[in-house]
Amino acid sequence: MEIPSVYLERAVGQFSQLPGIGRKTAMRLVLHLLRRERSDIEAFAESLNELAHNVRYCKVCHNISDEDTCAICSTPSRDHATICVVESVQDVMAIESTQQYSGTYHVLGGIISPMDGIGPQDLEIQSLVERVQAGGIREVILALSPTMEGDTTSFYIYRKLEGVGVTITTLARGVAQNDQLQYTDELTLGRSIVDRRPFSV
Amino acid sequence: MEIPSVYLERAVGQFSQLPGIGRKTAMRLVLHLLRRERSDIEAFAESLNELAHNVRYCKVCHNISDEDTCAICSTPSRDHATICVVESVQDVMAIESTQQYSGTYHVLGGIISPMDGIGPQDLEIQSLVERVQAGGIREVILALSPTMEGDTTSFYIYRKLEGVGVTITTLARGVAQNDQLQYTDELTLGRSIVDRRPFSV
Repeated sequence: MEIPSVYLERAVGQFSQLPGIGRKTAMRLVLHLLRRERSDIEAFAESLNELAHNVRYCKVCHNISDEDTCAICSTPSRDHATICVVESVQDVMAIESTQQYSGTYHVLGGIISPMDGIGPQDLEIQSLVERVQAGGIREVILALSPTMEGDTTSFYIYRKLEGVGVTITTLARGVAQNDQLQYTDELTLGRSIVDRRPFSV
Repeated sequence: MEIPSVYLERAVGQFSQLPGIGRKTAMRLVLHLLRRERSDIEAFAESLNELAHNVRYCKVCHNISDEDTCAICSTPSRDHATICVVESVQDVMAIESTQQYSGTYHVLGGIISPMDGIGPQDLEIQSLVERVQAGGIREVILALSPTMEGDTTSFYIYRKLEGVGVTITTLARGVAQNDQLQYTDELTLGRSIVDRRPFSV
Protein backbone atom coordinates (compact mmCIF):
# COMPACT_ATOMS: atom_id res chain seq x y z
CA MET A 1 0.00 0.00 0.00
CA GLU A 2 1.74 3.13 -1.20
CA ILE A 3 0.87 6.25 0.78
CA PRO A 4 0.57 9.41 -1.36
CA SER A 5 2.16 11.81 1.18
CA VAL A 6 5.34 11.57 3.23
CA TYR A 7 3.64 13.43 6.10
CA LEU A 8 0.74 11.01 6.09
CA GLU A 9 3.26 8.16 5.85
CA ARG A 10 5.19 9.44 8.88
CA ALA A 11 2.11 9.87 11.04
CA VAL A 12 0.86 6.41 10.05
CA GLY A 13 4.30 5.03 10.91
CA GLN A 14 4.12 6.60 14.38
CA PHE A 15 0.64 5.29 15.12
CA SER A 16 1.45 1.81 13.85
CA GLN A 17 4.32 1.53 16.36
CA LEU A 18 1.75 1.55 19.17
CA PRO A 19 0.75 -1.85 20.56
CA GLY A 20 -2.20 -3.47 18.81
CA ILE A 21 -2.33 -0.91 15.99
CA GLY A 22 -1.48 -2.15 12.51
CA ARG A 23 -0.91 -0.04 9.41
CA LYS A 24 -4.53 -0.16 8.23
CA THR A 25 -5.85 0.94 11.62
CA ALA A 26 -3.14 3.61 11.82
CA MET A 27 -4.22 4.92 8.41
CA ARG A 28 -7.84 5.04 9.56
CA LEU A 29 -6.87 6.98 12.71
CA VAL A 30 -4.72 9.47 10.81
CA LEU A 31 -7.35 10.08 8.13
CA HIS A 32 -9.87 10.61 10.93
CA LEU A 33 -7.53 13.19 12.46
CA LEU A 34 -7.14 14.90 9.08
CA ARG A 35 -10.89 15.42 8.87
CA ARG A 36 -10.76 17.39 12.11
CA GLU A 37 -9.74 21.05 12.47
CA ARG A 38 -6.04 21.82 12.15
CA SER A 39 -6.11 23.21 15.71
CA ASP A 40 -7.39 19.84 16.97
CA ILE A 41 -4.38 18.06 15.48
CA GLU A 42 -2.08 20.71 16.98
CA ALA A 43 -3.72 20.16 20.39
CA PHE A 44 -3.06 16.42 20.04
CA ALA A 45 0.60 17.10 19.24
CA GLU A 46 0.83 19.57 22.12
CA SER A 47 -0.58 17.00 24.56
CA LEU A 48 2.17 14.59 23.51
CA ASN A 49 4.87 17.22 23.95
CA GLU A 50 3.53 18.06 27.40
CA LEU A 51 3.51 14.36 28.19
CA ALA A 52 7.15 14.04 27.13
CA HIS A 53 8.29 17.01 29.19
CA ASN A 54 6.06 17.22 32.25
CA VAL A 55 5.19 13.72 33.41
CA ARG A 56 7.35 12.63 36.31
CA TYR A 57 7.46 9.66 38.62
CA CYS A 58 6.90 10.00 42.37
CA LYS A 59 10.27 9.67 44.08
CA VAL A 60 8.67 7.66 46.90
CA CYS A 61 6.36 5.17 45.18
CA HIS A 62 7.26 5.61 41.46
CA ASN A 63 3.65 6.24 40.48
CA ILE A 64 3.13 8.71 37.64
CA SER A 65 2.81 12.22 39.00
CA ASP A 66 3.00 15.90 38.07
CA GLU A 67 5.08 16.66 41.17
CA ASP A 68 8.16 15.11 42.76
CA THR A 69 5.86 13.39 45.24
CA CYS A 70 2.53 12.03 44.03
CA ALA A 71 -0.87 13.00 45.40
CA ILE A 72 -1.20 9.72 47.31
CA CYS A 73 2.22 9.90 49.00
CA SER A 74 1.70 13.53 49.96
CA THR A 75 -1.73 13.07 51.57
CA PRO A 76 -1.18 13.00 55.37
CA SER A 77 -4.51 11.29 56.08
CA ARG A 78 -3.48 8.11 54.25
CA ASP A 79 -1.89 5.21 56.12
CA HIS A 80 1.82 5.63 55.41
CA ALA A 81 2.74 2.51 57.40
CA THR A 82 1.17 0.27 54.72
CA ILE A 83 2.65 -0.21 51.26
CA CYS A 84 0.75 -1.96 48.49
CA VAL A 85 3.23 -3.30 45.91
CA VAL A 86 1.82 -3.29 42.36
CA GLU A 87 3.14 -3.93 38.87
CA SER A 88 1.92 -0.81 37.07
CA VAL A 89 0.29 2.59 37.24
CA GLN A 90 -2.93 1.03 35.95
CA ASP A 91 -2.98 -1.28 38.98
CA VAL A 92 -2.79 1.74 41.31
CA MET A 93 -5.78 3.25 39.51
CA ALA A 94 -7.68 -0.06 39.64
CA ILE A 95 -7.15 -0.43 43.41
CA GLU A 96 -7.90 3.25 44.05
CA SER A 97 -11.19 2.93 42.23
CA THR A 98 -12.30 0.16 44.65
CA GLN A 99 -12.16 2.80 47.46
CA GLN A 100 -11.18 -0.02 49.84
CA TYR A 101 -7.55 0.95 50.44
CA SER A 102 -6.15 3.98 52.20
CA GLY A 103 -2.43 3.12 52.43
CA THR A 104 0.37 3.98 50.01
CA TYR A 105 1.74 2.17 46.95
CA HIS A 106 4.99 1.06 45.41
CA VAL A 107 4.97 0.69 41.62
CA LEU A 108 7.51 -1.89 40.44
CA GLY A 109 7.26 -0.93 36.77
CA GLY A 110 6.85 -4.55 35.68
CA ILE A 111 7.28 -8.06 37.00
CA ILE A 112 10.16 -10.50 36.88
CA SER A 113 9.96 -12.28 33.54
CA PRO A 114 13.07 -14.14 32.37
CA MET A 115 11.33 -14.84 29.03
CA ASP A 116 11.19 -11.10 28.35
CA GLY A 117 14.62 -10.51 29.85
CA ILE A 118 13.23 -8.61 32.84
CA GLY A 119 15.14 -9.31 36.04
CA PRO A 120 14.84 -7.85 39.57
CA GLN A 121 17.39 -5.14 38.77
CA ASP A 122 15.08 -3.75 36.05
CA LEU A 123 12.32 -3.14 38.58
CA GLU A 124 11.87 -0.83 41.58
CA ILE A 125 12.56 -3.65 44.04
CA GLN A 126 15.75 -2.26 45.60
CA SER A 127 14.00 1.06 46.25
CA LEU A 128 11.15 -0.85 47.94
CA VAL A 129 13.58 -2.70 50.19
CA GLU A 130 15.28 0.58 51.13
CA ARG A 131 11.94 2.23 51.77
CA VAL A 132 10.91 -0.58 54.13
CA GLN A 133 14.33 -0.70 55.82
CA ALA A 134 14.11 3.04 56.47
CA GLY A 135 11.47 2.16 59.07
CA GLY A 136 7.92 3.25 59.90
CA ILE A 137 6.38 0.49 57.76
CA ARG A 138 4.03 -2.03 59.39
CA GLU A 139 2.68 -3.99 56.43
CA VAL A 140 3.64 -4.71 52.82
CA ILE A 141 0.82 -6.03 50.61
CA LEU A 142 2.04 -7.93 47.55
CA ALA A 143 -0.72 -7.12 45.04
CA LEU A 144 0.72 -8.69 41.89
CA SER A 145 -1.19 -10.62 39.26
CA PRO A 146 -1.85 -14.27 40.25
CA THR A 147 0.30 -15.59 37.40
CA MET A 148 3.58 -17.48 37.44
CA GLU A 149 5.57 -14.27 36.86
CA GLY A 150 3.59 -12.44 39.54
CA ASP A 151 4.10 -15.26 42.04
CA THR A 152 7.82 -15.39 41.23
CA THR A 153 8.12 -11.66 41.82
CA SER A 154 6.15 -11.87 45.06
CA PHE A 155 8.39 -14.66 46.30
CA TYR A 156 11.52 -12.72 45.37
CA ILE A 157 10.31 -9.64 47.27
CA TYR A 158 9.21 -11.82 50.19
CA ARG A 159 12.73 -13.24 50.51
CA LYS A 160 14.23 -9.74 50.35
CA LEU A 161 11.95 -8.42 53.11
CA GLU A 162 11.82 -11.53 55.36
CA GLY A 163 14.30 -10.29 57.96
CA VAL A 164 13.11 -6.69 58.16
CA GLY A 165 10.25 -7.37 60.55
CA VAL A 166 7.20 -6.19 58.61
CA THR A 167 3.98 -8.10 58.04
CA ILE A 168 3.88 -9.33 54.44
CA THR A 169 0.45 -10.09 53.02
CA THR A 170 -0.96 -10.88 49.61
CA LEU A 171 -4.34 -10.48 47.91
CA ALA A 172 -7.03 -13.04 48.80
CA ARG A 173 -7.53 -15.66 46.09
CA GLY A 174 -10.82 -17.43 45.48
CA VAL A 175 -13.87 -17.45 43.27
CA ALA A 176 -14.60 -14.07 41.71
CA GLN A 177 -17.85 -12.21 42.33
CA ASN A 178 -20.56 -13.42 39.88
CA ASP A 179 -18.44 -16.33 38.63
CA GLN A 180 -20.26 -19.53 37.67
CA LEU A 181 -18.81 -22.27 39.93
CA GLN A 182 -18.94 -24.92 37.20
CA TYR A 183 -16.73 -22.82 34.93
CA THR A 184 -14.21 -21.80 37.60
CA ASP A 185 -10.80 -23.41 37.09
CA GLU A 186 -9.82 -26.28 39.41
CA LEU A 187 -6.90 -24.48 41.05
CA THR A 188 -8.99 -21.47 42.03
CA LEU A 189 -11.94 -23.55 43.18
CA GLY A 190 -9.69 -25.94 45.15
CA ARG A 191 -7.94 -23.05 46.84
CA SER A 192 -11.24 -21.36 47.68
CA ILE A 193 -12.42 -24.52 49.49
CA VAL A 194 -9.16 -24.91 51.43
CA ASP A 195 -9.22 -21.21 52.34
CA ARG A 196 -12.94 -21.18 53.22
CA ARG A 197 -14.07 -18.51 55.68
CA PRO A 198 -16.75 -18.23 58.38
CA PHE A 199 -20.07 -17.29 56.78
CA SER A 200 -21.13 -13.76 57.53
CA VAL A 201 -23.87 -11.47 56.33
CA MET B 1 -10.66 5.74 37.13
CA GLU B 2 -8.80 8.77 38.40
CA ILE B 3 -5.64 9.58 36.48
CA PRO B 4 -2.76 10.79 38.65
CA SER B 5 -1.41 13.40 36.19
CA VAL B 6 -3.16 16.11 34.19
CA TYR B 7 -0.69 15.61 31.32
CA LEU B 8 -1.40 11.90 31.24
CA GLU B 9 -5.11 12.70 31.44
CA ARG B 10 -4.91 15.10 28.49
CA ALA B 11 -3.00 12.66 26.28
CA VAL B 12 -5.44 9.87 27.18
CA GLY B 13 -8.29 12.22 26.34
CA GLN B 14 -6.80 12.91 22.90
CA PHE B 15 -6.26 9.24 22.07
CA SER B 16 -9.71 8.24 23.29
CA GLN B 17 -11.30 10.66 20.81
CA LEU B 18 -10.00 8.50 17.97
CA PRO B 19 -12.48 6.00 16.50
CA GLY B 20 -12.49 2.59 18.18
CA ILE B 21 -10.21 3.65 21.04
CA GLY B 22 -11.77 3.73 24.51
CA ARG B 23 -10.24 5.17 27.66
CA LYS B 24 -8.60 1.93 28.78
CA THR B 25 -6.94 1.38 25.41
CA ALA B 26 -5.92 5.05 25.31
CA MET B 27 -4.30 4.66 28.72
CA ARG B 28 -2.42 1.58 27.53
CA LEU B 29 -1.16 3.44 24.44
CA VAL B 30 -0.04 6.50 26.41
CA LEU B 31 1.74 4.42 29.07
CA HIS B 32 3.45 2.54 26.25
CA LEU B 33 4.58 5.88 24.80
CA LEU B 34 5.86 6.97 28.22
CA ARG B 35 8.12 3.94 28.38
CA ARG B 36 9.83 5.09 25.19
CA GLU B 37 12.52 7.76 24.93
CA ARG B 38 11.41 11.36 25.30
CA SER B 39 12.71 12.05 21.79
CA ASP B 40 10.39 9.32 20.44
CA ILE B 41 7.36 11.06 21.92
CA GLU B 42 8.57 14.38 20.50
CA ALA B 43 8.93 12.75 17.09
CA PHE B 44 5.35 11.52 17.35
CA ALA B 45 4.15 15.04 18.23
CA GLU B 46 6.21 16.50 15.39
CA SER B 47 4.70 14.06 12.89
CA LEU B 48 1.24 15.28 13.91
CA ASN B 49 2.23 18.93 13.57
CA GLU B 50 3.67 18.23 10.12
CA LEU B 51 0.46 16.44 9.24
CA ALA B 52 -1.60 19.44 10.34
CA HIS B 53 0.47 21.91 8.36
CA ASN B 54 1.78 20.14 5.28
CA VAL B 55 -0.82 17.71 4.03
CA ARG B 56 -2.76 19.09 1.10
CA TYR B 57 -5.38 17.78 -1.28
CA CYS B 58 -4.73 17.50 -5.01
CA LYS B 59 -6.62 20.32 -6.74
CA VAL B 60 -7.53 18.02 -9.63
CA CYS B 61 -8.61 14.76 -7.97
CA HIS B 62 -8.75 15.70 -4.22
CA ASN B 63 -6.49 12.83 -3.25
CA ILE B 64 -4.13 13.52 -0.35
CA SER B 65 -0.88 14.97 -1.63
CA ASP B 66 2.21 16.90 -0.60
CA GLU B 67 1.93 19.13 -3.68
CA ASP B 68 -0.88 21.11 -5.30
CA THR B 69 -1.19 18.30 -7.82
CA CYS B 70 -0.81 14.70 -6.65
CA ALA B 71 1.73 12.22 -8.01
CA ILE B 72 -0.93 10.39 -10.01
CA CYS B 73 -2.40 13.47 -11.68
CA SER B 74 1.06 14.81 -12.53
CA THR B 75 2.34 11.60 -14.17
CA PRO B 76 2.12 12.11 -17.98
CA SER B 77 2.25 8.38 -18.74
CA ARG B 78 -1.07 7.71 -16.99
CA ASP B 79 -4.33 7.71 -18.93
CA HIS B 80 -5.77 11.15 -18.19
CA ALA B 81 -8.89 10.47 -20.26
CA THR B 82 -10.16 7.97 -17.66
CA ILE B 83 -11.38 8.98 -14.20
CA CYS B 84 -12.06 6.43 -11.48
CA VAL B 85 -14.49 7.90 -8.93
CA VAL B 86 -13.88 6.63 -5.39
CA GLU B 87 -15.15 7.43 -1.91
CA SER B 88 -11.87 7.83 -0.04
CA VAL B 89 -8.10 8.07 -0.12
CA GLN B 90 -7.92 4.46 1.13
CA ASP B 91 -9.85 3.34 -1.97
CA VAL B 92 -7.25 5.01 -4.21
CA MET B 93 -4.51 3.10 -2.40
CA ALA B 94 -6.47 -0.16 -2.61
CA ILE B 95 -6.98 0.17 -6.38
CA GLU B 96 -3.39 1.33 -6.93
CA SER B 97 -2.10 -1.73 -5.14
CA THR B 98 -3.94 -4.01 -7.61
CA GLN B 99 -1.64 -2.58 -10.35
CA GLN B 100 -4.54 -3.04 -12.79
CA TYR B 101 -5.42 0.59 -13.35
CA SER B 102 -3.44 3.33 -15.04
CA GLY B 103 -5.97 6.16 -15.28
CA THR B 104 -6.64 9.00 -12.84
CA TYR B 105 -8.96 9.29 -9.84
CA HIS B 106 -11.54 11.56 -8.31
CA VAL B 107 -11.93 11.30 -4.54
CA LEU B 108 -15.44 12.25 -3.42
CA GLY B 109 -14.56 12.45 0.27
CA GLY B 110 -17.55 10.31 1.28
CA ILE B 111 -20.82 8.99 -0.15
CA ILE B 112 -24.35 10.31 -0.07
CA SER B 113 -25.88 9.21 3.22
CA PRO B 114 -29.03 11.02 4.35
CA MET B 115 -28.88 9.10 7.67
CA ASP B 116 -25.55 10.80 8.45
CA GLY B 117 -26.68 14.11 6.98
CA ILE B 118 -24.28 13.86 4.03
CA GLY B 119 -25.74 15.24 0.81
CA PRO B 120 -24.25 15.73 -2.69
CA GLN B 121 -23.15 19.28 -1.79
CA ASP B 122 -20.85 17.89 0.94
CA LEU B 123 -18.92 15.81 -1.59
CA GLU B 124 -16.62 16.59 -4.51
CA ILE B 125 -19.36 15.86 -7.05
CA GLN B 126 -19.68 19.34 -8.56
CA SER B 127 -15.89 19.44 -9.13
CA LEU B 128 -16.15 16.04 -10.88
CA VAL B 129 -18.89 17.30 -13.17
CA GLU B 130 -16.84 20.40 -14.01
CA ARG B 131 -13.75 18.27 -14.61
CA VAL B 132 -15.65 16.06 -17.05
CA GLN B 133 -17.38 19.01 -18.75
CA ALA B 134 -14.00 20.65 -19.31
CA GLY B 135 -13.41 17.94 -21.92
CA GLY B 136 -10.73 15.39 -22.72
CA ILE B 137 -12.43 12.67 -20.67
CA ARG B 138 -13.44 9.41 -22.36
CA GLU B 139 -14.60 7.24 -19.46
CA VAL B 140 -15.77 7.68 -15.87
CA ILE B 141 -15.60 4.55 -13.72
CA LEU B 142 -17.91 4.63 -10.71
CA ALA B 143 -15.91 2.58 -8.18
CA LEU B 144 -18.06 3.04 -5.08
CA SER B 145 -18.89 0.39 -2.50
CA PRO B 146 -21.72 -1.94 -3.58
CA THR B 147 -24.00 -0.74 -0.77
CA MET B 148 -27.24 1.22 -0.84
CA GLU B 149 -25.40 4.48 -0.18
CA GLY B 150 -22.78 3.67 -2.80
CA ASP B 151 -25.42 2.80 -5.37
CA THR B 152 -27.37 5.98 -4.57
CA THR B 153 -24.25 8.07 -5.04
CA SER B 154 -23.39 6.27 -8.30
CA PHE B 155 -26.90 6.90 -9.60
CA TYR B 156 -26.73 10.59 -8.63
CA ILE B 157 -23.42 11.03 -10.45
CA TYR B 158 -24.72 9.07 -13.44
CA ARG B 159 -27.68 11.47 -13.78
CA LYS B 160 -25.35 14.46 -13.53
CA LEU B 161 -23.03 13.15 -16.25
CA GLU B 162 -25.62 11.58 -18.58
CA GLY B 163 -25.69 14.38 -21.11
CA VAL B 164 -21.96 15.09 -21.26
CA GLY B 165 -21.12 12.27 -23.68
CA VAL B 166 -18.66 10.15 -21.71
CA THR B 167 -18.77 6.41 -21.18
CA ILE B 168 -19.88 5.68 -17.64
CA THR B 169 -18.91 2.28 -16.23
CA THR B 170 -18.97 0.62 -12.83
CA LEU B 171 -17.01 -2.19 -11.15
CA ALA B 172 -17.92 -5.75 -12.11
CA ARG B 173 -20.03 -7.53 -9.47
CA GLY B 174 -19.97 -11.25 -8.91
CA VAL B 175 -18.55 -13.95 -6.71
CA ALA B 176 -15.28 -12.97 -5.05
CA GLN B 177 -12.06 -14.90 -5.59
CA ASN B 178 -11.89 -17.89 -3.19
CA ASP B 179 -15.50 -17.46 -2.01
CA GLN B 180 -17.43 -20.62 -1.15
CA LEU B 181 -20.45 -20.65 -3.49
CA GLN B 182 -22.81 -22.07 -0.84
CA TYR B 183 -22.11 -19.16 1.47
CA THR B 184 -22.35 -16.43 -1.19
CA ASP B 185 -25.43 -14.24 -0.71
CA GLU B 186 -28.33 -14.73 -3.15
CA LEU B 187 -28.12 -11.30 -4.70
CA THR B 188 -24.45 -11.65 -5.60
CA LEU B 189 -24.82 -15.24 -6.82
CA GLY B 190 -27.95 -14.38 -8.83
CA ARG B 191 -26.22 -11.43 -10.45
CA SER B 192 -23.11 -13.49 -11.24
CA ILE B 193 -25.26 -16.02 -13.14
CA VAL B 194 -27.13 -13.35 -15.09
CA ASP B 195 -23.84 -11.58 -15.90
CA ARG B 196 -21.99 -14.82 -16.78
CA ARG B 197 -19.04 -14.47 -19.13
CA PRO B 198 -17.40 -16.65 -21.82
CA PHE B 199 -15.03 -19.10 -20.18
CA SER B 200 -11.38 -18.31 -20.82
CA VAL B 201 -8.09 -19.60 -19.54
